[in-house]
Amino acid sequence: MPFAYYMPVRIVAGEDCVKKNAALLAPFGARALVVTGKSSAKNGALEDIAYALGRNGQTFAVYDKIEPNPSVASVKEGAALARSFGADFIVAAGGGSPMDAAKAVALCARQEVGDIFTHPIEGDVLPMVHIPTTAGTGSEVTPYSILTDDAGQTKRSISAPQLFPKLAFLDGKYMADLPQQVTVNTALDAISHAVEGMLSVRGGALTDALARESLRLLLGAYPALRLGKYTLQDRQTLLYGSTLAGMVIAATGTTPVHGMGYALTYFHGVPHGRANGLLLPAFLEACMQKIPARMQEVVAALGMDIPAFAHKVAVLLGRREAYNDKTLQDYAARAAKNRNVANCLAHFSEEDLLAVLRRSVGG
Amino acid sequence: MPFAYYMPVRIVAGEDCVKKNAALLAPFGARALVVTGKSSAKNGALEDIAYALGRNGQTFAVYDKIEPNPSVASVKEGAALARSFGADFIVAAGGGSPMDAAKAVALCARQEVGDIFTHPIEGDVLPMVHIPTTAGTGSEVTPYSILTDDAGQTKRSISAPQLFPKLAFLDGKYMADLPQQVTVNTALDAISHAVEGMLSVRGGALTDALARESLRLLLGAYPALRLGKYTLQDRQTLLYGSTLAGMVIAATGTTPVHGMGYALTYFHGVPHGRANGLLLPAFLEACMQKIPARMQEVVAALGMDIPAFAHKVAVLLGRREAYNDKTLQDYAARAAKNRNVANCLAHFSEEDLLAVLRRSVGG
Repeated sequence: MPFAYYMPVRIVAGEDCVKKNAALLAPFGARALVVTGKSSAKNGALEDIAYALGRNGQTFAVYDKIEPNPSVASVKEGAALARSFGADFIVAAGGGSPMDAAKAVALCARQEVGDIFTHPIEGDVLPMVHIPTTAGTGSEVTPYSILTDDAGQTKRSISAPQLFPKLAFLDGKYMADLPQQVTVNTALDAISHAVEGMLSVRGGALTDALARESLRLLLGAYPALRLGKYTLQDRQTLLYGSTLAGMVIAATGTTPVHGMGYALTYFHGVPHGRANGLLLPAFLEACMQKIPARMQEVVAALGMDIPAFAHKVAVLLGRREAYNDKTLQDYAARAAKNRNVANCLAHFSEEDLLAVLRRSVGG
Repeated sequence: MPFAYYMPVRIVAGEDCVKKNAALLAPFGARALVVTGKSSAKNGALEDIAYALGRNGQTFAVYDKIEPNPSVASVKEGAALARSFGADFIVAAGGGSPMDAAKAVALCARQEVGDIFTHPIEGDVLPMVHIPTTAGTGSEVTPYSILTDDAGQTKRSISAPQLFPKLAFLDGKYMADLPQQVTVNTALDAISHAVEGMLSVRGGALTDALARESLRLLLGAYPALRLGKYTLQDRQTLLYGSTLAGMVIAATGTTPVHGMGYALTYFHGVPHGRANGLLLPAFLEACMQKIPARMQEVVAALGMDIPAFAHKVAVLLGRREAYNDKTLQDYAARAAKNRNVANCLAHFSEEDLLAVLRRSVGG
């Protein structure tokens, strides 16, 4: 099976890696815009960034208005600040929302962008340094930025090789006080990335390797996820597992799981990772019918059969959301139009998608 | 354990990937220098390169004088040709020697280089496209170029982020007629890379993941290696395993195994991969004494204990080289000065190295 792989982000990992590697920030320029959420960097990350930039004699401004499921409006506001401040580079700190939004800020700060979802991304963007403070999105190693598209009533991605950060710092300590729900939801997101990568038409030997290891790490942390008690090592394990899963989807993209999940997030505020967790088991059951041979490799990577996996996910999810059938029919129709449906090794018709939605979140 | 990872090469893999992705070569410029060995590209690679460049209207010259264990003289000659031809980029086709030499050619074509081993590599080099025709070196995804240092009577590496190729094409079909000895030796090289990466002080969660998968692929091909009969799928498996192992050492560097092996190659012409294969099992036995906890992870990655692994390697090696003790004392003294000795999680004194050499190739 042919495949392609490209992931040019320099990764530096370990406790206090931001402070210890301040020198790596120096070449990016004199002025940084820190892009983050209201509280996304209030876990020690902002202090470490300030310390590192200060050591290099770099100045910075902070744009901390990135909301969960970031809007294009905040992106444009952040980009305006980057321009007026004269930012040479972006430091993004937070979960998927600030990290994704920062990529769009980096783009809009350098280029005149009208409709961001149709803008052809050519030329360069502000260089970026990403610091994840959740373990799930993998945005630190992907060229994707997922934003809220209010006109299309969904989440929508922009993608270009220029949107890869130049540098990512991985430090599990920023997750020490992450609430249990966020920890679980983001872990489910990462698990979904690894599994979906294995079911992508763009998967191959390299991404399979990364996916298998990602699942080994993430599912190895299941006891901690279930108990809600984490050592620093557990946090690091989840973070590295999530980064590996990000390296997978950087090459493979995602599948109908993400395509269906966006509606749950857009219309009901279901956290993105949780939406994937709700849908993944029933999606895998359907894949067992459609592509049993490939699914044997997924089962091997999970280290358990699909019912056992579904049970573990169900334990983490707790009480499920439920929607009436008319709603689900609408969501299946929307998901069927998403391009990641065609990105899957198994063909999912609108009816197939509806069946997965019913089984996952039927009323 | 802190770690760093950076591997910016775009990888494109699959049967006929060079011809199918000719368009990827177009942006590199109008004129290419193909760097290869006498027969390194006479396996279909040169035809495919010519076809792809021709489709883009690109012209090329061929420098095919790279010898095994390449000399600085050939590198300089290749660079002179690159300049006189006005090459915009390099296409390297072959095993480790042409691919490594091409990096040095790319450097010397762009910069005035006196002593290549002490030249500070700053600024850019000619962009490179690498096409491995053996599965072992991993050079297509590393920033290393290993050359023969006649003054120092050893092989010696130069290294810089600029020496990463921009693009690598992986097509197992070029290995279809690779002789059994070369196939085995290069596979042993790749296995050694993966294992040594796990024992490097610069290893970490990401490279461990790549190493485990690399070993799963490479050792999974053991039955084919033993029989000397290969399907195209076996060739691809060995190639992807070797590339994964290259991604490991790109981040971790190598250990005393490589440090000791260089003398066997320089003074006795033992093929590089075979030298590593001769030394690796006794090295691992010594590590079992020194760092037993870490070695448990290596044993898990190998899927067998060290005696079982040593047996498999011995079967592939056949009759061993043997050297007298005075010679080995000299090689231990040389190896002790190599910087990759300090790159190992276990401390190896000159005496320890001598013990490994005696056990591996004692007279």
